[in-house]
Amino acid sequence: MPESPGTMAEWQVSQWFNSERPLRVGDLRGRVVLIHAFQMLCPACVAHGLPQTQRVRDAFAGDDLAVVGLHTVFEHHAAMSPQALAAFIHEYRLSFPIGVDEPAADGPVPLTMEKLGLRGTPSTVLLDRHGRIRLHHFGRLDDLHLGFALGQLLTGSW
Amino acid sequence: MPESPGTMAEWQVSQWFNSERPLRVGDLRGRVVLIHAFQMLCPACVAHGLPQTQRVRDAFAGDDLAVVGLHTVFEHHAAMSPQALAAFIHEYRLSFPIGVDEPAADGPVPLTMEKLGLRGTPSTVLLDRHGRIRLHHFGRLDDLHLGFALGQLLTGSW
Amino acid sequence: MPESPGTMAEWQVSQWFNSERPLRVGDLRGRVVLIHAFQMLCPACVAHGLPQTQRVRDAFAGDDLAVVGLHTVFEHHAAMSPQALAAFIHEYRLSFPIGVDEPAADGPVPLTMEKLGLRGTPSTVLLDRHGRIRLHHFGRLDDLHLGFALGQLLTGSW
Amino acid sequence: MPESPGTMAEWQVSQWFNSERPLRVGDLRGRVVLIHAFQMLCPACVAHGLPQTQRVRDAFAGDDLAVVGLHTVFEHHAAMSPQALAAFIHEYRLSFPIGVDEPAADGPVPLTMEKLGLRGTPSTVLLDRHGRIRLHHFGRLDDLHLGFALGQLLTGSW
Repeated sequence: MPESPGTMAEWQVSQWFNSERPLRVGDLRGRVVLIHAFQMLCPACVAHGLPQTQRVRDAFAGDDLAVVGLHTVFEHHAAMSPQALAAFIHEYRLSFPIGVDEPAADGPVPLTMEKLGLRGTPSTVLLDRHGRIRLHHFGRLDDLHLGFALGQLLTGSW
Repeated sequence: MPESPGTMAEWQVSQWFNSERPLRVGDLRGRVVLIHAFQMLCPACVAHGLPQTQRVRDAFAGDDLAVVGLHTVFEHHAAMSPQALAAFIHEYRLSFPIGVDEPAADGPVPLTMEKLGLRGTPSTVLLDRHGRIRLHHFGRLDDLHLGFALGQLLTGSW
Repeated sequence: MPESPGTMAEWQVSQWFNSERPLRVGDLRGRVVLIHAFQMLCPACVAHGLPQTQRVRDAFAGDDLAVVGLHTVFEHHAAMSPQALAAFIHEYRLSFPIGVDEPAADGPVPLTMEKLGLRGTPSTVLLDRHGRIRLHHFGRLDDLHLGFALGQLLTGSW
Repeated sequence: MPESPGTMAEWQVSQWFNSERPLRVGDLRGRVVLIHAFQMLCPACVAHGLPQTQRVRDAFAGDDLAVVGLHTVFEHHAAMSPQALAAFIHEYRLSFPIGVDEPAADGPVPLTMEKLGLRGTPSTVLLDRHGRIRLHHFGRLDDLHLGFALGQLLTGSW
């Protein structure tokens, strides 16, 4: 598994869905975290990444694993507003917390996407219990490899 | 194959994509027409109906068969504006003409959807060469049955 | 649709499954016939061709359409005996008539396969109501095209 | 993950494919072992279990993980002889070692299947580095859960 050094800094989220209060990275310390960065009009996210993320949430989320979506809009901004995202989340029955990545003042790429150095959507980021980034994947990630990485991280020793 | 009586009246379309000029039903007389009614945030349309429609277009569209999409928005209107649809069409690489069904002045269901009596999305409507409605299907329609219906209509005798 | 000239001659079958009596080509005149030539250890037949043939049988077979399987063994003969085929048909729940193509006295290719000029398995052959070969396809044939061809043939005019 | 107590005893295999010499359980100590029990005419094995096992082999097999197939024939014995299995392995391009579970002298269920208490095919058994059975699953096991279990076992701490 490719590793990325560094610890996850605070994400910058302008609005949350499926969460009663704002989630902070620090609140998730001690848990493994799966972050799925997507755009609602990205075909590979809709066909593959989001259903996979929902499967992970349904199968494994709990005290040891948090699953978080991040709407990292870097194109077609007007079409992927938070209002549109609300309709999308409803229609696709997504049940995990989803944050809207804060738009930048001076460019198309939102703040957390920029900070994480994501190359596009879908992207999958895994944090270990200490908040360290342990996997950083752009594009399709198959279930076998994602399950493997989660199994490794959740044993606590990796 | 279930049949619906009647001839296709003019659709009411406020805007066209993938077409240099407005398409009129009358212009398509003499050709078989596949109409796919969808909403861009309808999961079954995105996963099944639209890829199928694109496959039909790629395999069979020509002098004898016209393939037309109809964006029949009856919910989440703000999220499925023509501007959002433009981004969607671009991202999903849809190449067939798509018309925006004209919103009603006094209700959520757009005018052509109302006139055709569509029950929801995805819906598939097939017209014979005389403009008569020969198939009217709500929900998933498998490739085998759709291919069969097209084969029947395109022989000209059915 | 590519056409092959000629009329289907009698197949040479040493044993039938799912049929109370031997089927003869002549008995099927007046009906459209789908012939699926397969081998029980051919991966593309098992994954694609046979389930498709069963779908056609379930959807369309009747007075107008006959669906027939042909076990055209041209390799691994000992592993694909009629006895093994019986177990295979049982496990895969195939319900259409299946004939064992008669082995040749002096080579690996069985008699009907040789006569039809099949290039391998899976192969799909379609006969019109007059017993003429109208489609002759080696390899995967997608549902849309197969449905289309069946629709054309079953209208009677093609 | 459901656990089964006990240590894997020696399997009883009458013949090996894809292995230059007989494999013994004891030789695999120190490695995690995935055992896939199948029958070549079992549809769920062919459609799901065997391709999954090959994917695991291609993705993860090495010094830390061994992947082993076990042909546990308990029905249609004549159709699933070692000779037929050889043709099957060739056609399906299976590259991991596959052992033929030794037939019983007095019943349909072969010896290793009986000893392991397998309920049918496909069955998946996972051994940890000490040869202890840690997963014992009958039926389809999805990639996410299998990957998760492998990830846990291969960290060495589970």
